[in-house]
Amino acid sequence: MYRKQTCGELRLANVGQQVTLAGWVQRVRKMGGLTFVDLRDRYGITQLVFDESDGNAELCEKANHLGREYVVQAIGAVRERASKNAKNPTGDIEIVVSELNVISSSEVPPFTIEDNTDGGDDLRMQYRYLDLRRPCVRKNLELRHKLAFEVRRYLDGQHFLEIETPMLIKSTPEGARDFVVPSRMNPGQFYALPQSPQQFKQLLMVAGMDRYFQIVKCFRDEDLRADRQPEFTQIDCEMSFVDQEDVIQMFEGMMKHLFKELKGIEFDTFPRMTWEDAMRYYGSDKPDLRFDMKFVELKVDPAKESKFAEGARPEAVMDVLPAGQFSVFDDAAYVAGICAPGCASYTRKQIDQLTDFVKRSQIGAKGLIWIRKNEDGSLKSSIDKFYAPEVIAALCDRFGANNGDLMLILCGERRKTQKQLCALRLEMGQQLGFRDPSKFVPLWVIDFPLFEWDDETQRYYATHHPFTMPNPDDIPLLDTDQGKVRSWAYDCVMNGVELGGGSVRIHDSALQAKMFKLLGFTPEKAMEQFGCLINAFKYGAPPHAGLAFGLDRVVSMFAEIDSIRDTIAFPKNNSGRDVMVDAPCAIDQAQLDELQLALNLKEE
Amino acid sequence: MYRKQTCGELRLANVGQQVTLAGWVQRVRKMGGLTFVDLRDRYGITQLVFDESDGNAELCEKANHLGREYVVQAIGAVRERASKNAKNPTGDIEIVVSELNVISSSEVPPFTIEDNTDGGDDLRMQYRYLDLRRPCVRKNLELRHKLAFEVRRYLDGQHFLEIETPMLIKSTPEGARDFVVPSRMNPGQFYALPQSPQQFKQLLMVAGMDRYFQIVKCFRDEDLRADRQPEFTQIDCEMSFVDQEDVIQMFEGMMKHLFKELKGIEFDTFPRMTWEDAMRYYGSDKPDLRFDMKFVELKVDPAKESKFAEGARPEAVMDVLPAGQFSVFDDAAYVAGICAPGCASYTRKQIDQLTDFVKRSQIGAKGLIWIRKNEDGSLKSSIDKFYAPEVIAALCDRFGANNGDLMLILCGERRKTQKQLCALRLEMGQQLGFRDPSKFVPLWVIDFPLFEWDDETQRYYATHHPFTMPNPDDIPLLDTDQGKVRSWAYDCVMNGVELGGGSVRIHDSALQAKMFKLLGFTPEKAMEQFGCLINAFKYGAPPHAGLAFGLDRVVSMFAEIDSIRDTIAFPKNNSGRDVMVDAPCAIDQAQLDELQLALNLKEE
Repeated sequence: MYRKQTCGELRLANVGQQVTLAGWVQRVRKMGGLTFVDLRDRYGITQLVFDESDGNAELCEKANHLGREYVVQAIGAVRERASKNAKNPTGDIEIVVSELNVISSSEVPPFTIEDNTDGGDDLRMQYRYLDLRRPCVRKNLELRHKLAFEVRRYLDGQHFLEIETPMLIKSTPEGARDFVVPSRMNPGQFYALPQSPQQFKQLLMVAGMDRYFQIVKCFRDEDLRADRQPEFTQIDCEMSFVDQEDVIQMFEGMMKHLFKELKGIEFDTFPRMTWEDAMRYYGSDKPDLRFDMKFVELKVDPAKESKFAEGARPEAVMDVLPAGQFSVFDDAAYVAGICAPGCASYTRKQIDQLTDFVKRSQIGAKGLIWIRKNEDGSLKSSIDKFYAPEVIAALCDRFGANNGDLMLILCGERRKTQKQLCALRLEMGQQLGFRDPSKFVPLWVIDFPLFEWDDETQRYYATHHPFTMPNPDDIPLLDTDQGKVRSWAYDCVMNGVELGGGSVRIHDSALQAKMFKLLGFTPEKAMEQFGCLINAFKYGAPPHAGLAFGLDRVVSMFAEIDSIRDTIAFPKNNSGRDVMVDAPCAIDQAQLDELQLALNLKEE
Repeated sequence: MYRKQTCGELRLANVGQQVTLAGWVQRVRKMGGLTFVDLRDRYGITQLVFDESDGNAELCEKANHLGREYVVQAIGAVRERASKNAKNPTGDIEIVVSELNVISSSEVPPFTIEDNTDGGDDLRMQYRYLDLRRPCVRKNLELRHKLAFEVRRYLDGQHFLEIETPMLIKSTPEGARDFVVPSRMNPGQFYALPQSPQQFKQLLMVAGMDRYFQIVKCFRDEDLRADRQPEFTQIDCEMSFVDQEDVIQMFEGMMKHLFKELKGIEFDTFPRMTWEDAMRYYGSDKPDLRFDMKFVELKVDPAKESKFAEGARPEAVMDVLPAGQFSVFDDAAYVAGICAPGCASYTRKQIDQLTDFVKRSQIGAKGLIWIRKNEDGSLKSSIDKFYAPEVIAALCDRFGANNGDLMLILCGERRKTQKQLCALRLEMGQQLGFRDPSKFVPLWVIDFPLFEWDDETQRYYATHHPFTMPNPDDIPLLDTDQGKVRSWAYDCVMNGVELGGGSVRIHDSALQAKMFKLLGFTPEKAMEQFGCLINAFKYGAPPHAGLAFGLDRVVSMFAEIDSIRDTIAFPKNNSGRDVMVDAPCAIDQAQLDELQLALNLKEE
């Protein structure tokens, strides 16, 4: 062993001990006849000191020639520091070095190895092995290890078996694009990399495995958005002989275990909200409940609803906005807003910026209506010329506005406007500092619609996947009003982020056949894509249900960072490229020939 | 929850309790007015009883119509059995059922769901989800889970971090064939699936991660031998600031931990053997030490050695076989044998069968010489006509043969003959019952040769991989006698199986450059293939070393089975095919077009 102690463990209690450390040179400072070297390893930083007056000029000379990121071994005695550093756990001591061995030298690194580095994103990704030396990045990986380990500890304690499912599976054209893998031994044929082990975990339930989990890499060949990775990691779980309540209890227990073990936070029972309420009050199936600012509906006119939008028909709200005074509201199926506390002082410019925000193409609102309730109780709004003061006052009452509040109102089609208002609510939450990353508010969203209408193709798709169990109460609706059918599906949401989700599965062949039919599969096509599972269900399928958490996302939540990228040791960029190893890349013609493949590149 | 208890937990102490079980119908027996149903789940089998005389004819009728593998829920009272079954942990009790609910029916399964099934291999693989219901297969997966969990528990306790390395990496043409993955976003370019995370784990050491492990899927596109899988799982590990001794201690500790936790077996320190001795005494780099039967060298003539065979030149053994009497031995560079205890009674036919065994093309010996030392001390051999009785007697002495022993001798080129004699030794060990799968004898094999000579291409290859550190004592030999250079590489061997292996890595850029040169890489080619690692080493590489265990292999050792296939939930067959889901398969033209690829199938 090149070391006997780490750079993170020595304290005042060790003063006088002979120690052997090894690590990287963080920095070298020469002060008169003294040379100080900060030595860093995974565990911390310890100060080495070299003193010319000790008469060992050669040793000091060696220390003075150390460069940043050199790897050295230092042997010496621990002594108490004259000027202590309370910020560093080892800051009370230093090592008076008697022997210094340079193990590896280093070129000058392309950026500083510090939390506040001078390296830009691209450079850090190219030299990720140096970026990972920065404590803030290293800590995320340590957290990821610990979190995955605690997941395993909890689930093992609950009699779950971690079972590896195959990575080389069958391609299914439904859903997101598969990555495919040509088979040399079966020319012209391809494996696919799994988007999730969904079918295999259900087969494991048919196989009687009872409680399965796996922390497993999954793959999706999608055009990457800012925070998507082509390969990502799921905590994938499935249980037999359970209903929705059992699964929710089990995995609420897991999240509580993780928060307690990793962050010392204890939760009460997680609240639950139906998808319908989540949309109604927050315009999102993953509401951020760190702050309130619930939607207030000023007008809901079911007669103006699109026929196929998913979810139940809303109750009418028609009492507070008199018709015939403001055509924009008159034409809208839905008018609703939020009340931003203390924002009546927003300037015209600030309100214009909010208007620009909601009118951005990603959000797509046509405009923003506002009402100020000033500190003196007086009202001012952008619709003063349309409505009598009593109407405006009634709106304020509906909002429950206090003096000093600002109401922000959007209108249009219901589902679209809810999503726009959701974006506005989150923006206001951000501006008001309500979205503290160190505050954690969990939620189960339940009763998702079983089907989702797609305007483009004019048909229904499975919201979750074709194996999701409809709520038995709604089974009669399957034949009459598909959009209203609720599923036994559930999402675990925290701070506006979906951490995981799942569903009770259909275990009855006849119901499954009906679902395939409703989703537009011919029996042949269903058999081609899901034949193995359909056949397996003929041999005694237990009732089962499951769920999957996005590990990258869960770790970023615990790490209190927005991006998942820094929870991953070697992430890919937005073009799916690993710029460090330079993958993907061209392969030899010989490799293509062996695979009996040819490139067929389109002209640019 | 569909059950309140499992089918494995009820005992005499539970008599009188109302219970709710759910599971699969193992079998139904009707005996007079009684119907017995064995109900099975992952945890065991519990007997249900239905009694017509209780007056519930309808319930009995329902029970009588249950088929094998139906999924049912049964509610009833626990009572003591009249005739107990000591073989079953629940065999003291039965459930007098008051309510029976059929959850799913089942077609008649294609084979019986029992350890001794009537299903052949192909059928079992096609219906793997039914095969996994058999307790003997299920137990292997339970063992695999437990073993992986204990690996993690041990390594977490030793401050290892489990860090996920990417699955979509860069293809390197050296070594075994990569599976490749076409990139749609980067047309004409491919990712490769990792054969091991070797470069990434070394980069993690450069990144200061200090102690890394990962239980990780790896991929090799090789023509599959009987017991190879295209995807397999490694326990992959790497440590910084350590030497060979530290790594051996750490992972010997891990194996001891696993044996203690999983099998209640405690080991002393694992013995160690140099590769040279392993070859000399057992003809294998993974000797089976469950039995002795060491090789005895009767002649070693270094003058007849091939110039390039790897390893040290042997000491001459020329004293016991007089020349000029038996041309076969005269011509051989090497004559050696084993002494099979108590086998002098082998018939001529049995010896002929052994001769046929060693002459099989897979083994390739030209013939087999034998000497019997009969129970009365008299000697009989197949070389009596060539050598004087005193010579035969001297050979027996060299073997240390006892009365009743049979000596079996092979001759030829040294390395080839050692391998042949190894096969013969293992066969004799098998015949004599010395290879008990419930006996475990570990061994570290060390001092592997750094290079391996390839007769076909007339050049040296890295025995392990190009990053393996030469034994510093042998560095001068790099320029003069490559074949003799020992490496700091080590294998963990048990019962003749290599469970894992690894090496100390080169962390010095200059030495690494020299290694690449010796292995025939131009600097450009080395940079193309290993550029990322070569560059990383410029920024302060710590001394590091690691190793990888084959999880499938380790589990099969613990499960005391020969094949790795039954340690894997969904294995592939010898053509790399998953016959259950039918993968690989053809993909749509649209998918190929998106990938800008075309099939280029050779004519048959």
